[in-house]
Amino acid sequence: MEIVRFGVIGYGQRGCGLLDNLLLMDDVVITAVCDKYEDRSEKAKARVIEKRNASPFASTDYKEILKRDDVDAVLIATDWEMHFPIAIDAMKAGKAVALEVGGAYCIEDCFELVKTWEETKVPFMFMENCCYNREEMLVTEMAKQGKFGKIVYCSGSYSHDLRGEVATGKENRHYRLRNYLNRNCENYPTHELGPIAKILGINRGNRMVSLVSVASMACGMEQYVNDRRDTVNPELIGAKWAQGDIVNTIITCENGETILIRLDTTLPRSYSREFTVRGTKGMYEQQTNSVFFDGQAEYWNPTDFVKNYMNSAEKFKDLLPDCWKNITKEQLDAGHGGMDYIEFREFVTCLKEGKEMPIDVYDAASWMCVSCLSEKSIKEGGAPQAIPDFTNGAYKTR
Amino acid sequence: MEIVRFGVIGYGQRGCGLLDNLLLMDDVVITAVCDKYEDRSEKAKARVIEKRNASPFASTDYKEILKRDDVDAVLIATDWEMHFPIAIDAMKAGKAVALEVGGAYCIEDCFELVKTWEETKVPFMFMENCCYNREEMLVTEMAKQGKFGKIVYCSGSYSHDLRGEVATGKENRHYRLRNYLNRNCENYPTHELGPIAKILGINRGNRMVSLVSVASMACGMEQYVNDRRDTVNPELIGAKWAQGDIVNTIITCENGETILIRLDTTLPRSYSREFTVRGTKGMYEQQTNSVFFDGQAEYWNPTDFVKNYMNSAEKFKDLLPDCWKNITKEQLDAGHGGMDYIEFREFVTCLKEGKEMPIDVYDAASWMCVSCLSEKSIKEGGAPQAIPDFTNGAYKTR
Repeated sequence: MEIVRFGVIGYGQRGCGLLDNLLLMDDVVITAVCDKYEDRSEKAKARVIEKRNASPFASTDYKEILKRDDVDAVLIATDWEMHFPIAIDAMKAGKAVALEVGGAYCIEDCFELVKTWEETKVPFMFMENCCYNREEMLVTEMAKQGKFGKIVYCSGSYSHDLRGEVATGKENRHYRLRNYLNRNCENYPTHELGPIAKILGINRGNRMVSLVSVASMACGMEQYVNDRRDTVNPELIGAKWAQGDIVNTIITCENGETILIRLDTTLPRSYSREFTVRGTKGMYEQQTNSVFFDGQAEYWNPTDFVKNYMNSAEKFKDLLPDCWKNITKEQLDAGHGGMDYIEFREFVTCLKEGKEMPIDVYDAASWMCVSCLSEKSIKEGGAPQAIPDFTNGAYKTR
Repeated sequence: MEIVRFGVIGYGQRGCGLLDNLLLMDDVVITAVCDKYEDRSEKAKARVIEKRNASPFASTDYKEILKRDDVDAVLIATDWEMHFPIAIDAMKAGKAVALEVGGAYCIEDCFELVKTWEETKVPFMFMENCCYNREEMLVTEMAKQGKFGKIVYCSGSYSHDLRGEVATGKENRHYRLRNYLNRNCENYPTHELGPIAKILGINRGNRMVSLVSVASMACGMEQYVNDRRDTVNPELIGAKWAQGDIVNTIITCENGETILIRLDTTLPRSYSREFTVRGTKGMYEQQTNSVFFDGQAEYWNPTDFVKNYMNSAEKFKDLLPDCWKNITKEQLDAGHGGMDYIEFREFVTCLKEGKEMPIDVYDAASWMCVSCLSEKSIKEGGAPQAIPDFTNGAYKTR
């Protein structure tokens, strides 16, 4: 395959950014676009025409995209609820799948995704962009080289104030809105869990065996709406929100490591993923972008010390992979500081060269299932939930 | 009472520091000292003679201290295991109790402590010094004034690399050693939980209702010992350690808030308590000593911004209580940056003036019971444990 012909399904905020990333690639053409809202599918079409001077097929029905012979691969960036159905239908139609992230609504969906891939063996990649972020890639390489010793514990969060996004959409189109009104769980686990799973070898010699999840009360959205009655979606005034403001989930791995992840999206704060790696020889802490190694003085102030090159992860930037060493300004500007471009480049390259996808269907299933299992744990007062082994034992030797 | 006559029980590292704090106070005399090791009780006696030119009674049996008429109050700073028995005996002997912190080994001890106090009504204070630290006191006052809105979530940790302390004592005297060898739990919850409980009104309108606790593997101590075979206690070479390196505990409160605490003492790191307060209007984060309020820009770098007065908690230093505004250099230097002096000053003042103790037996029981409940939760794979209401319903109106 010299050129990858894409169908883009879903043209909300995320689809817009990702289409632009694909349009940067010489070996990609966009042959079809789709969104269930016609204004959006037309907007996607217009964007392709603007950039490439070629008109893609446009539809509001994703099944029309899957029928087409001029589509090799689909990017799925729809609402979370449609991720599984479309990905499964796409694999059955023989279309390679780049699946945007989200969480699962039920464990059966995760098994179905895996089963479909095992039956079809269609190339599938779960597009967790944070696995391709600069800091995460650098620290993953440091961990691989043993700089932190044996890794014992990792933590991270999706700390992103989404109140405005959830409360101000006038059209009620945003999938997050209905989730926050009706559901209480770790609804978006993979930005922090993905890089951690890579470091801990999840599904490759290790696996996640159980989790507990506990949610705080939900009052951030209510306060936000009350304080901004003139600007929010008026239907939300007086609404009751199901989603707890802070959800902590602790995952235990078969090899004894634990992982803490936190959903933190409805209280005022600055953005952070708080990616943290702890080993017997050292640690990395994203919140201060600092490293600390065994033998350093116990008392130091990370906010002062991180200014010092000695304690900044930047000291190790020579370990960055080539994709980061050689990144261009255009790629950096294409979305989320460059990681979106790098991950889609990876997908396209693997697809063209017939290589194994770096984040596969087993990763997708095991990372996404955290959402529905956390929902159950929260309902049961924090009771532990077993995490299935979607590889059916193969993780031991993969 | 014009002068408080103290018996100091326990003269390990903590007892040494606290005796020096008491010796700074004009309205305190030390009439008796005790440690089960005679060299230590003699050392305590010598310290009092050196500073006060008066010789206290010295014994290796704490019961001898409790029998004395010239002792009004005891400071208990022994190994954790003896905290409850000595505190209970002291109250029965009519001696006011200043109980150094630690965790409980069984829930029955906690109930017995409360019952003894209810029967004797002897003044009792749980000496959680972190409740008196500058940052914690400032942020507690900010929370009280509503600067963070409704508080939804708090977190903190006891992040303190104790490997050297645990592994290098040649005499096996350190109580932590036997705990780390034989026990797996949140063994020291109160440094972070105390200030959080104060902010959330625990036992005063609110209470902690349940917890889940999950421990990582234990390999930090083993690595430390292996790396330093020449300097550690030789008996520890090849030892198996029970205590997981990282223990996360999530507590749910009756009013819907959640609390995350972390024990983090056997992997290399810098000291931190990571005290964090999250509300509907703002947040405080100790790791960067930063505040953030609703309406600020979403993307900022706390490590840069904290240098800016706007985002530093220092902006609010006028809210500090007088004890911090008026603190002297001598008091600051007396231990843990001043908080030890302030908390003991509080105990002595309340005792002399017959005031209610600010951290009472109900606080002690509910904070300390986290240790034994976490041990049970860890054993049961993270299963939720009910936290008793030691106030028997009185928390609703206290």
